Amino acid sequence: MPADLVPQVLAGNRRALARLLSHVERGEAEAALKALYPHTGRAWVIGVTGSPGSGKSSLVNALTQHYRANGETVAIVAVDPTSPFSGGAILGDRIRMRDLSGDAGVFIRSMATRGSLGGLARTTRDMVRVIDAAGFDRILIETVGAGQSEVEVARVAYTTLVVEAPGMGDDIQAIKAGILEIADVLVVNKADRIGANQTARALKTMLELGHPAARVYHHGQYMTVEAAPAPVAEWIPEVVMTVATERKGIAELAAAIEAHRQHRLRDAGPFDPQALRAELFERAREALFQQWLQTLSPDTIETLIQRMHQRELDPQTAVQQLLAPPSAQEHGHARP
Amino acid sequence: MPADLVPQVLAGNRRALARLLSHVERGEAEAALKALYPHTGRAWVIGVTGSPGSGKSSLVNALTQHYRANGETVAIVAVDPTSPFSGGAILGDRIRMRDLSGDAGVFIRSMATRGSLGGLARTTRDMVRVIDAAGFDRILIETVGAGQSEVEVARVAYTTLVVEAPGMGDDIQAIKAGILEIADVLVVNKADRIGANQTARALKTMLELGHPAARVYHHGQYMTVEAAPAPVAEWIPEVVMTVATERKGIAELAAAIEAHRQHRLRDAGPFDPQALRAELFERAREALFQQWLQTLSPDTIETLIQRMHQRELDPQTAVQQLLAPPSAQEHGHARP
Repeated sequence: MPADLVPQVLAGNRRALARLLSHVERGEAEAALKALYPHTGRAWVIGVTGSPGSGKSSLVNALTQHYRANGETVAIVAVDPTSPFSGGAILGDRIRMRDLSGDAGVFIRSMATRGSLGGLARTTRDMVRVIDAAGFDRILIETVGAGQSEVEVARVAYTTLVVEAPGMGDDIQAIKAGILEIADVLVVNKADRIGANQTARALKTMLELGHPAARVYHHGQYMTVEAAPAPVAEWIPEVVMTVATERKGIAELAAAIEAHRQHRLRDAGPFDPQALRAELFERAREALFQQWLQTLSPDTIETLIQRMHQRELDPQTAVQQLLAPPSAQEHGHARP
Repeated sequence: MPADLVPQVLAGNRRALARLLSHVERGEAEAALKALYPHTGRAWVIGVTGSPGSGKSSLVNALTQHYRANGETVAIVAVDPTSPFSGGAILGDRIRMRDLSGDAGVFIRSMATRGSLGGLARTTRDMVRVIDAAGFDRILIETVGAGQSEVEVARVAYTTLVVEAPGMGDDIQAIKAGILEIADVLVVNKADRIGANQTARALKTMLELGHPAARVYHHGQYMTVEAAPAPVAEWIPEVVMTVATERKGIAELAAAIEAHRQHRLRDAGPFDPQALRAELFERAREALFQQWLQTLSPDTIETLIQRMHQRELDPQTAVQQLLAPPSAQEHGHARP
């Protein structure tokens, strides 16, 4: 039983932690998650995302060693897109992470992004809570590449780093737009390469032109400065240059993360009420849907889909018919 | 009233079409969408996606001119990530598209990806239905760059093209993995550049290694060959080389699209029953949630969120309390 692992996880047993996380990944740890929830809220959760090739894994390693040198414990959750195509690259990342695995103050966990995206965010969030309850000071969530995971991660992390390398083409900007908007700290890694200053300047210009600079975090909600009900301090994403493989700029990066943490703690705290509301509603939405689904016969649904397919019935009307109270469905035609 | 535009849209009035699409974008066209639904199902919907800089817009232009030369009408829906950062690039695309705008058989519409992602897919789908009912033969949906829109687009399009340019780095593969999996046809554009054959070969190898080659489209559902209940023809994504700016390879590309169309029509038809089911459930999920939300007082929700924030209450228990029938909530503690 996953719930039996709870006392061991709280006592810091790594094997129990690993086993419980496997249960969480399979969605079989509801009771354990309930029991651990009161013990969460201590760790600071940092999301690390950005283009492939920007050196995210090296940066995660360097940041981990920085925190370890300060006596803090670190857990790394590596979120991999499950794809037969990208197996190689991910294997490489995992091998690099073995540098850290001899250290008892470091815990590393890979997570495949199987299932739906909603599922990914939820599983990541649940895993982070378990690791938080297990007592780690810092939890780094590293995503590999693709756009969808980045935004999902941003919803789970308290501070989100977006990592770039110098020499990005102009036309790659479109890809970045969505990612930049989730950045609390922008990292130009491989900053010893040609074009690093230029990339940093370009990112700063983008920030100045774009709205993130005018974004404030107020009572658990991101809003524009104009929309904020009272004068509040803005969080302007910092741009930090690093050479992760040589540990350059890592202290500055940690300082930028700390500044964002202080900023966020001043307002809503780590557990964003807005995120809790979203979680509550997401769970309610799913529970309501599942309850409702059980009241329907598969035939009813298949008939409606068939009629939609034949263009006899539009989707709006189909839903209205499905949601009408059973009495209306039964008696609707019999009554005058 | 948007619904008043329906007869004009069906009569092919472009101004009415443009106006109705604006209503659709604002989510204010439910009645019109209902009325138009029986008139949909004629157009073939082609999604065009891929890396920034791969020449998607030029390819869309060339394909449009190919279809026009065959006497077919074409609508282009350009889905842009709404971002202050990418304004420039998108403007460029729009200017290029003006090449086509003198032709009455071509309709061009830009769409900003405001709102949620669910919203993007839904709005795109609704817009495509309106344009379909307006009588266009081909609808090309072009997305600009970012990962999330690609997958959303794949759910709306009947045939999805993924466009690449030669010379992609190895480390970009992770980004591509998710996108490749949605490809029905892979296009190596700018095929006059160095490395085009190599890129085409790399893509073919990836297809052979990966699962898409073994993916079958059977009764409205993608599945692996092993999972298919009966021997069915597989759809193996074709790799086509083009130089869109010189109209090279466009006839071959159109032939590949046609082959996929025939393949898909042999089975489920354009309107994928699986997609209709997903749409029905998505709408039901939202309608159920909205119904339920109206029965709650904001105070109840705020109190629960506050208790979750204080770690007094975990999210699972909070949802259970919210979904319990009102009688249980009122009398639960009073009874023995």
